[in-house]
Amino acid sequence: MSERIWTAGIVVIGDEILSGRTQDKNIAQIATWLNVQGIRLSEARVVSDREEAIVEAVNAIRQRCDYCFTTGGIGPTHDDITVDAIAVALGVEVVVHPEARAVLEKYYQTRGGLTEARLRMARVPDGADLIVNRVSGAPGIRHGNIFILAGVPHITAGMLDALTGTLEGGRPVVARTIGCWVAESEVADLLRTTERDYRGDGAEAGVAIGSYPFFREGRTGANFVVRGTDPVVVDACLAALTAGLEAAGRDVTDGGI
Amino acid sequence: MSERIWTAGIVVIGDEILSGRTQDKNIAQIATWLNVQGIRLSEARVVSDREEAIVEAVNAIRQRCDYCFTTGGIGPTHDDITVDAIAVALGVEVVVHPEARAVLEKYYQTRGGLTEARLRMARVPDGADLIVNRVSGAPGIRHGNIFILAGVPHITAGMLDALTGTLEGGRPVVARTIGCWVAESEVADLLRTTERDYRGDGAEAGVAIGSYPFFREGRTGANFVVRGTDPVVVDACLAALTAGLEAAGRDVTDGGI
Repeated sequence: MSERIWTAGIVVIGDEILSGRTQDKNIAQIATWLNVQGIRLSEARVVSDREEAIVEAVNAIRQRCDYCFTTGGIGPTHDDITVDAIAVALGVEVVVHPEARAVLEKYYQTRGGLTEARLRMARVPDGADLIVNRVSGAPGIRHGNIFILAGVPHITAGMLDALTGTLEGGRPVVARTIGCWVAESEVADLLRTTERDYRGDGAEAGVAIGSYPFFREGRTGANFVVRGTDPVVVDACLAALTAGLEAAGRDVTDGGI
Repeated sequence: MSERIWTAGIVVIGDEILSGRTQDKNIAQIATWLNVQGIRLSEARVVSDREEAIVEAVNAIRQRCDYCFTTGGIGPTHDDITVDAIAVALGVEVVVHPEARAVLEKYYQTRGGLTEARLRMARVPDGADLIVNRVSGAPGIRHGNIFILAGVPHITAGMLDALTGTLEGGRPVVARTIGCWVAESEVADLLRTTERDYRGDGAEAGVAIGSYPFFREGRTGANFVVRGTDPVVVDACLAALTAGLEAAGRDVTDGGI
């Protein structure tokens, strides 16, 4: 029986990432959160603060994935154009959301009042709902399968927290890791055949083995990660791989090195 | 006179990034290196270890950018399919590169010999040249405007080092930063009008101002980054922005806070 796989894509919006000034942390953060929701991150794109770039990426991802997340570009300044671009992508107007306006009015009551620039953060693509922001003032935005989140990682985290448990997903991906002081090239055949034995009918339903080499303390090693949605199959594959490595005379460290 | 802008895109290949297991460091690393070469990173994509995903992303980026960089998936194991996928994207065969084979033979002479799995790392899309790898054995690969680099960041760094100065670019982007203890929403108009004054005929040729808010030590602040290819225009824009902030009664910290 084939299992429904739920997928998501991320559009990271911001010249600060593409210039190398800022190291993106949201892809890893959202990916980890999605795993727990039983949703698989299938792609991520980093685009600049240009309308065409945002429109193209959001349209590609919202059409091919179950969920499309964006980060960045929802502040009060001229380079924050995410809402406008997504409205263009959807072919809807930009409107001031009354609830977002109320949230901002309250937040800025003791912080100098709601100026025109700050009111920009109450603008949403017509038809949108809000995502609660417990960390700072401006809320996130949901429109259909698009989730418009902040770019600052700890604010993004708060918005993900507000979304936890609200998105339909499948079985979470289970990942188990073992480590071994071995050059991955020495066990490449074992990895290939073991994965093939447990891959199942389709790559999505069965397990996948990832091989992540490292060089540490003057020695070569690798961690092997077995991923899949069925914990029984993941464990069986891990046991087979462990047995194969031990049969080749290698010590295996559970949990990775 | 319009200035030729050289652009690049990155395809990061690897389930380990999309699963959240590994934090990508190559986008920021390559972006920073590109700035020095006078090449602008215009987009980046993270895709999974699936042939269709790699083919689609590489074809999109190699056609719209001057340069396409890939990272990851060039090791000896079953999940390393970058070379095969790029050969499909280009419509060429995969061949063993004799020089790469010689490099690997020498490297593995004292490391257990060149096995079949290790020989996989000598495979290239037909017509490719090699990129020197001074850090570990397997070389990177160049085919036309595609640069196939390792995924492990310090090996990627070595390959970038080998490429330094070999790619045609334009004038490097100059970025200068100032910082201010101010809520960015309070100076949004100043940012917008100052950028407009110095943007020039086209967005690419003139300057852009980025606004990056932060919350630190219980206070709200922002760093403002002025970017452009003409240092004179960047400095003039920075001076105008500084004057505007000071006229509004703000202390400005050169270099950012």
